Amino acid sequence: MEVILVYINFPSRDVARHIGTALIEKQLAACVNLINGVESIYQWKGEICDEVEVMMVAKTTVSRYQQLEDYVKEVHPYDTPEIIGQQLAHGSEGYLNWVQDQMEGRH
Amino acid sequence: MEVILVYINFPSRDVARHIGTALIEKQLAACVNLINGVESIYQWKGEICDEVEVMMVAKTTVSRYQQLEDYVKEVHPYDTPEIIGQQLAHGSEGYLNWVQDQMEGRH
Amino acid sequence: MEVILVYINFPSRDVARHIGTALIEKQLAACVNLINGVESIYQWKGEICDEVEVMMVAKTTVSRYQQLEDYVKEVHPYDTPEIIGQQLAHGSEGYLNWVQDQMEGRH
Repeated sequence: MEVILVYINFPSRDVARHIGTALIEKQLAACVNLINGVESIYQWKGEICDEVEVMMVAKTTVSRYQQLEDYVKEVHPYDTPEIIGQQLAHGSEGYLNWVQDQMEGRH
Repeated sequence: MEVILVYINFPSRDVARHIGTALIEKQLAACVNLINGVESIYQWKGEICDEVEVMMVAKTTVSRYQQLEDYVKEVHPYDTPEIIGQQLAHGSEGYLNWVQDQMEGRH
Repeated sequence: MEVILVYINFPSRDVARHIGTALIEKQLAACVNLINGVESIYQWKGEICDEVEVMMVAKTTVSRYQQLEDYVKEVHPYDTPEIIGQQLAHGSEGYLNWVQDQMEGRH
């Protein structure tokens, strides 16, 4: 299936909104959902860290994934941002077509 | 794997609760999780839109997916609701069996 | 792809934090994201239940999945906790390498 989900974490709502809006304007994502107040726990240089982040779920396509990744790496404030993508196995035809239309500028 | 995750976005908590409860009563989903206050950014007729939605994550099975999709399209307030599903690759046997039992009315 | 996403639901933030931190200290996950205030609707003994839970999204690897599942089943307050995992199809190389490094203690 051509449509995929991409997860990207951000340090704040404003940064997530700014980059998310740019992804849509550049037709690198059809839409993005921002989940606020996500608590991220990880280890950094041996210390357990606990930060509040914003989780973005972007709907894009396999053919646009690499451009999306390259753009996010260019503008994201982290050195190594989380950018991971998952295949879809099912989807309503109308919605999947809408995603494709968005990516090809047929609004 | 038979169990899948389905993502559906809703305009409000009440609508998400109502349709989510119906999915369970009709044995079209074993359980649904509702993530509130999700910010959705997308383009509509050339304008960037920014709405607050509720993201539902429904646990169902491959064999029930089409019935779930058909029902949601029938009752959802949007013309083209997001209904997308993902395969699972791993899962604890006890939980996967619970999902199957729910879908076959063995509560 | 070696890196996978694992979803686990918890009854409270404290329990999710405690078990999430242990997963990282035991190198069973590279990082965990906690989504708070998730509304879970399901059926239990014929009754519709509606609880507030915390959804954890853990980043781990295929080779560590079974150890992670076994540990969570051991310490989780539920008899049959939801522990389900999904394959990744795409990811930025730098981030995927970071996950692997974390799992092998190269902090």
